[in-house]
Amino acid sequence: MLFERIESKGLAHYSYIIGDGNQAVVIDPRRDCGVYMDMAAEGGYQIKYIMETHRNEDYIIGSVELAARCGAEIWHADAELDYQYGKPSEDGQTWSIGSLELKVICTPGHTPGSMSYLLHDSAGIPWIVFTGDALFAGDIGRVDLPGLDLMDEMAGLLYDSLFNKLLPLGDDVIVCPGHGSGSVCGTAIASRPMTTIGIERKNNPKLRYTDKAEFVEKMAVELERPPYFRMMEKLNLEGAPVLGNLPSPPPLSPDKFAEMAENAIVLDTRTETGFGAAHVPDSKAIWLKGVPSFAGWFLTYDKPILLVNETNNPETVVRMLIRIGFDNIAGYLYNEMHEWFMSGKETQSIKLVEVHDLCHLLDDRKKAWILDVRSEEEIESARITDAHNIHLTQLPERIDEVPKDKPVYVFCGSGLRSMVAASFLQNNGWDNVAVILGGLAGWSSITCPVKIKE
Amino acid sequence: MLFERIESKGLAHYSYIIGDGNQAVVIDPRRDCGVYMDMAAEGGYQIKYIMETHRNEDYIIGSVELAARCGAEIWHADAELDYQYGKPSEDGQTWSIGSLELKVICTPGHTPGSMSYLLHDSAGIPWIVFTGDALFAGDIGRVDLPGLDLMDEMAGLLYDSLFNKLLPLGDDVIVCPGHGSGSVCGTAIASRPMTTIGIERKNNPKLRYTDKAEFVEKMAVELERPPYFRMMEKLNLEGAPVLGNLPSPPPLSPDKFAEMAENAIVLDTRTETGFGAAHVPDSKAIWLKGVPSFAGWFLTYDKPILLVNETNNPETVVRMLIRIGFDNIAGYLYNEMHEWFMSGKETQSIKLVEVHDLCHLLDDRKKAWILDVRSEEEIESARITDAHNIHLTQLPERIDEVPKDKPVYVFCGSGLRSMVAASFLQNNGWDNVAVILGGLAGWSSITCPVKIKE
Amino acid sequence: MLFERIESKGLAHYSYIIGDGNQAVVIDPRRDCGVYMDMAAEGGYQIKYIMETHRNEDYIIGSVELAARCGAEIWHADAELDYQYGKPSEDGQTWSIGSLELKVICTPGHTPGSMSYLLHDSAGIPWIVFTGDALFAGDIGRVDLPGLDLMDEMAGLLYDSLFNKLLPLGDDVIVCPGHGSGSVCGTAIASRPMTTIGIERKNNPKLRYTDKAEFVEKMAVELERPPYFRMMEKLNLEGAPVLGNLPSPPPLSPDKFAEMAENAIVLDTRTETGFGAAHVPDSKAIWLKGVPSFAGWFLTYDKPILLVNETNNPETVVRMLIRIGFDNIAGYLYNEMHEWFMSGKETQSIKLVEVHDLCHLLDDRKKAWILDVRSEEEIESARITDAHNIHLTQLPERIDEVPKDKPVYVFCGSGLRSMVAASFLQNNGWDNVAVILGGLAGWSSITCPVKIKE
Amino acid sequence: MLFERIESKGLAHYSYIIGDGNQAVVIDPRRDCGVYMDMAAEGGYQIKYIMETHRNEDYIIGSVELAARCGAEIWHADAELDYQYGKPSEDGQTWSIGSLELKVICTPGHTPGSMSYLLHDSAGIPWIVFTGDALFAGDIGRVDLPGLDLMDEMAGLLYDSLFNKLLPLGDDVIVCPGHGSGSVCGTAIASRPMTTIGIERKNNPKLRYTDKAEFVEKMAVELERPPYFRMMEKLNLEGAPVLGNLPSPPPLSPDKFAEMAENAIVLDTRTETGFGAAHVPDSKAIWLKGVPSFAGWFLTYDKPILLVNETNNPETVVRMLIRIGFDNIAGYLYNEMHEWFMSGKETQSIKLVEVHDLCHLLDDRKKAWILDVRSEEEIESARITDAHNIHLTQLPERIDEVPKDKPVYVFCGSGLRSMVAASFLQNNGWDNVAVILGGLAGWSSITCPVKIKE
Repeated sequence: MLFERIESKGLAHYSYIIGDGNQAVVIDPRRDCGVYMDMAAEGGYQIKYIMETHRNEDYIIGSVELAARCGAEIWHADAELDYQYGKPSEDGQTWSIGSLELKVICTPGHTPGSMSYLLHDSAGIPWIVFTGDALFAGDIGRVDLPGLDLMDEMAGLLYDSLFNKLLPLGDDVIVCPGHGSGSVCGTAIASRPMTTIGIERKNNPKLRYTDKAEFVEKMAVELERPPYFRMMEKLNLEGAPVLGNLPSPPPLSPDKFAEMAENAIVLDTRTETGFGAAHVPDSKAIWLKGVPSFAGWFLTYDKPILLVNETNNPETVVRMLIRIGFDNIAGYLYNEMHEWFMSGKETQSIKLVEVHDLCHLLDDRKKAWILDVRSEEEIESARITDAHNIHLTQLPERIDEVPKDKPVYVFCGSGLRSMVAASFLQNNGWDNVAVILGGLAGWSSITCPVKIKE
Repeated sequence: MLFERIESKGLAHYSYIIGDGNQAVVIDPRRDCGVYMDMAAEGGYQIKYIMETHRNEDYIIGSVELAARCGAEIWHADAELDYQYGKPSEDGQTWSIGSLELKVICTPGHTPGSMSYLLHDSAGIPWIVFTGDALFAGDIGRVDLPGLDLMDEMAGLLYDSLFNKLLPLGDDVIVCPGHGSGSVCGTAIASRPMTTIGIERKNNPKLRYTDKAEFVEKMAVELERPPYFRMMEKLNLEGAPVLGNLPSPPPLSPDKFAEMAENAIVLDTRTETGFGAAHVPDSKAIWLKGVPSFAGWFLTYDKPILLVNETNNPETVVRMLIRIGFDNIAGYLYNEMHEWFMSGKETQSIKLVEVHDLCHLLDDRKKAWILDVRSEEEIESARITDAHNIHLTQLPERIDEVPKDKPVYVFCGSGLRSMVAASFLQNNGWDNVAVILGGLAGWSSITCPVKIKE
Repeated sequence: MLFERIESKGLAHYSYIIGDGNQAVVIDPRRDCGVYMDMAAEGGYQIKYIMETHRNEDYIIGSVELAARCGAEIWHADAELDYQYGKPSEDGQTWSIGSLELKVICTPGHTPGSMSYLLHDSAGIPWIVFTGDALFAGDIGRVDLPGLDLMDEMAGLLYDSLFNKLLPLGDDVIVCPGHGSGSVCGTAIASRPMTTIGIERKNNPKLRYTDKAEFVEKMAVELERPPYFRMMEKLNLEGAPVLGNLPSPPPLSPDKFAEMAENAIVLDTRTETGFGAAHVPDSKAIWLKGVPSFAGWFLTYDKPILLVNETNNPETVVRMLIRIGFDNIAGYLYNEMHEWFMSGKETQSIKLVEVHDLCHLLDDRKKAWILDVRSEEEIESARITDAHNIHLTQLPERIDEVPKDKPVYVFCGSGLRSMVAASFLQNNGWDNVAVILGGLAGWSSITCPVKIKE
Repeated sequence: MLFERIESKGLAHYSYIIGDGNQAVVIDPRRDCGVYMDMAAEGGYQIKYIMETHRNEDYIIGSVELAARCGAEIWHADAELDYQYGKPSEDGQTWSIGSLELKVICTPGHTPGSMSYLLHDSAGIPWIVFTGDALFAGDIGRVDLPGLDLMDEMAGLLYDSLFNKLLPLGDDVIVCPGHGSGSVCGTAIASRPMTTIGIERKNNPKLRYTDKAEFVEKMAVELERPPYFRMMEKLNLEGAPVLGNLPSPPPLSPDKFAEMAENAIVLDTRTETGFGAAHVPDSKAIWLKGVPSFAGWFLTYDKPILLVNETNNPETVVRMLIRIGFDNIAGYLYNEMHEWFMSGKETQSIKLVEVHDLCHLLDDRKKAWILDVRSEEEIESARITDAHNIHLTQLPERIDEVPKDKPVYVFCGSGLRSMVAASFLQNNGWDNVAVILGGLAGWSSITCPVKIKE
């Protein structure tokens, strides 16, 4: 049989393909769905069903795209929503995949009609439950997305789903959730990509609240919501446009690129050194692997996107962008910045500071302003003396807290997110911004008067 | 600089990409045009121009597809035709590609407005002429396609193009034609994929007719015209639909396949042994590498196509089919015939005969009928005693010459084309047909009373 | 973090790579170990440790090969054996991989010093136990391999390992075994590629014997042992030769192939139709996906191997063969059988029978002999009237039971294993052998006087 | 038939594969010879012969490697040299490849026994001559390599080869040389990758010297000889070690890398921006595509090489290095500089200057020193006022001309070679060196008081 977890890196989105006999089912596919087609073809399976655990809000679900390519049936959760494709699955409904059986369990809370799918093996043993965003490793689904006024109600539903539906499946059932560590769909998802009911029952901090009222009180909280969520919610009801295949944005000469850039967003995915050294004026830095996590916070859907990347093959970036609906990619700068330099066009740069040099730069602390863009959790584990903390995703709202008249030294864990922050500051008029190469990791490994509190 | 000849195997179609500085031009692109994009990206070139040598009739030109992906300008020949895309090039017009220069030379005859393109290198030396279908290695373009009534006129035009435009370029100029050996666009193209003016002047048998009247008389002849040519001509004026990428036909179960096959053409591209042993009833055999040459003769555009192939990846067949406009590919039988056998569905077979067994099978020649589907040229070089010759492409018209009441033994050069013929006979009700494995090549290597005349 | 199960298809061998921070560990790598290098490089991990769960006997472990390529430390189990590489791990020893911890648990029984590895996640939670061949899904390791005289002792050790070491880890711990369904290392491994302690405690039929004496009595049984096991055991102590990369056997012309075949084994991995229709005389049929399971039964190490395969790229077969030590691959027939036919060389064939034709062929049952090569378990679920049952792997020993003076019709589940049997019979002088296309699956789907008992 | 030119970029080395029937020949293969195997397999050809045009000195010929993989015969030129492999070809000897014929023509001069190979097509027409390093497009082979005392003699031999052997073949014969533009084997090879006898007879500046005495006088000159040539000459007689496949250097942690770097050469192939911003101390910069051209000048064979590259896949660099015998590649820094920064290790940087900023930096010309590392030919076409010219390859010998007490601004055509020079200066103790991004191309496109003389 076939059982594979397919991770969309950065989004920490997990989808699954299960095959037996010559049939297969895909749970929560992503939009660039060739991977499922290839796995099925390689093993000799036909994808018969596509199951959605809920109306997702953090990525475009690939159901419509995949169905268009392989003819599978789409079954979705949240039946009360106004879907323009697929069929609603009902509590208790079952499907056969070869000798396996998949049974739906209604587990609302994260969304009003979230579904979990319990897979029985060929001997009828309850084996794996696919919990979507109801239950994660070490965390549970957030309940604030349907609306702040509904939070208490949703939390109550989720309590029932967890304590009365999922935990009773038994400690020995494997749990395959919809997201892993790093997803914005949970606040503290553990790094176990798969888990069991038993491990969660014993260790999941959110499941300690066995009292429903206390659970609701603790869980009904508002969390960060990236601006792109609204677009995902809309497209996941309508069904996102079928792409057929990955778009292939054309290569652009510096002249053409510069001309088009006047009405476009320039996204530069090169390394921190490359971007820091020189970039197209007003471009936005997000290092390649950071695109899934930060594009939704710093890009918008109202303009075409132009790419600066390290090779003449933008496929990886394009793949990441279309997963969250940035389909309007108008081209990429060919031959990278090298061609730009040769055309004599102007550039901008961001100062890069090595940790060894930082010590004396900070001698006069009054003159410098340290910005730490790490999250609260990270800051709690290691704090930089005198640093100002603004989490990267809050920077757009709190940018006015950053002074323009002092050198700003931006810290993160390793130097990657700092560059996102630094470029955002530069885009908004700050001109004395520096990124600490290696970030806190580098900083921690040298000795310097500027202490880190652990 | 970049200079590559890209061959579409089977069609023997040659396209070219030339790059210098950071610009590139593509001459006569094919429809699955990713290859040009990749070569350009790899070398750091941008495709700026797409040039057509003439309105092609034997494949779908990829100009529109490629332009949609890279934004290049399309320049076409045959300016008097009613194109729905691109711009017409004019005699003498020039384009720069980096330090190179491309100059158009009007060379009508094969079509009313065929163009050749003369490439000058960076020192201004006339270097290569891209002659499209005006001049091939060892052959010249046919003149019967614009119409039988225009043949004399076209032959006269071609005479002028060859003797007054191309030969005067000088013996030392390299000739890069639009087709190589095996193309249906010439009757006897030599196997040199590139040649020179001098080599052709001295050796091309068609250029011996230096007297114009004699040239016209000899050249104005009607040649075979595959049925799909009309469709190509139409699509190459309209601009074929933009595919974006190769279509991905879905895998089909035997049940679904059988159901759809009732209103579809089943194309089986497996080897002669696989097809002979067992195949889906009423399917058409064309071995994989033979698809470009024979699909246009044996398939039609009025029904969807279903595929039986050796792997669960039909990409190669799909690529071959869309090059000649068979875009309507409805699916493929997954897990090949193996799945079909397991479903208990009926099959057909074609008898396979080893050359060693053939001798005694032919003992009583009155009872057997030998069909040789090779071309006249091949038959002239080695003839099988008592064989009946019907060239494979003429079989549809001449099928009634084949008896139904005798065993029919089909010969070709190697056993591949025989199977195309045998399956066509079987499709049409002949039920005692056998294919000689190894064909004449195998037959020639053994001794047997049935002689081959050389 | 990185967590992937890598399956070697056919062997049903599972290896694992786990990465965290920037370090990774590989458990029971296979010999063609590029896959681990690629996964590690892609995710930015360095492979620091290679762990062996036991001295394997059914495939060549890739520890030495992988260590040669990435410099990782090898830790092996079965410390008392005379290893020529690596270091022995000790009960209770731990290793860190980023924030994860791997701890060894001595679980002898399958081999004298088998080890399991318990992975704790970054919060210290016991998460996954890698049990090698001690505990499978639905089965346990066989105890007959160390020697029939030691079976009782080994069974006793295994009882303790299972009931006193592994089950006490708790129902909620995930179990990742060394093999899945289809492996010769268990008799009835379930199709769950991963499982939990709880699922096994409740459902594993071998764990019902909670009484040690009864357990020993039931488990201490001799099972089939493929002839290649001895070679694996030897190479896994010595360390198999480092290949560097996959061997690239050269293409051979029919003449060269025929010449070399006189002192070689010819392995033909084409489909049942292709092989049945025509093959090189005396060649052995094993369909491509069947090579891992049957090469060890039907090939020997004393001669070079020559390949007949469907493409001019033998990589997949080579990969399968070197996993079980068939490194001496002398070449492959280029252009497949087609070239052989053209050279006029003789061939053999095996009769292929469609299920629809079988009915009347069997009218006179006295004249036909039906051989069913399926396993006992398969036969129990569906029996063919009057069929003679010899499991494929027993055919070499029991070949004399098959009559030479009657037509032999070979059945299996789908027609694949039948061809292995048929070619083995043909190699040994049987000349009236036929394979039933589609096997029992096809047969079951039609109606015919010859009944199947279910 | 098959005819392909395979270019090894950077070395501008051309090799060729020609196939017909089912046989193929390779002329002057490169060491990473999988490309020929793949092309042959794809087309159904067997490589039967490997021909060498001469004992090469600028790359490792792949004859031995390729023969080890496909069993082809090796025929070499320079028969009087002490080869340890292959057989010498003799003037006039012929080989058949299908219906083609290859005939050797002795054309000494570049080396004492250089051979050209004249290919006749299937009709016996002299079609293409493979001239190795005897005749290039626009240039001829250098004659100084066998020894300065032999230059006159070699020039005389070359005269005879060119004027009495090659030119008499006729204007219409296509010339396929061993190198293209950019090779160090000629001083001014034209950018035509293929040419004809006629084009060369009319346009090749070296063929203007029809008087033998004058030819010898003009041609017998000493040219630059990269230090790695001696190693190539040695290995091309001995036969370089058979690699089997590309080496896979292991990934290294910053700690391990730093430790090994003490006795190794660190080669950094990142872009000019990445290297300029921060690099491992004492590393040598050669941008990726520049490695084939400059590794032989700046690396040595006495120490292992460590790589810093942009991805975790060093295959491209490895391929380039082994082509010129740098087989001892000890590893690469995984996760690129990012991991280095996080480890808190020190870095060096090189100042990067945008052309717009350069103007005012040069205001006080007395304080700055401009180094132009372009070649004489390039400088002649556009000269920078007050720049000091030292061609990059001469920098090691002339480094003392560069002042240490002034800022040194390094120019080249585009900014790539400048960084090679700047890193070499930094390695040797210069600490105030800057690279002009975009080089002369960028500089030319802006207006600035510092004029360029054209």
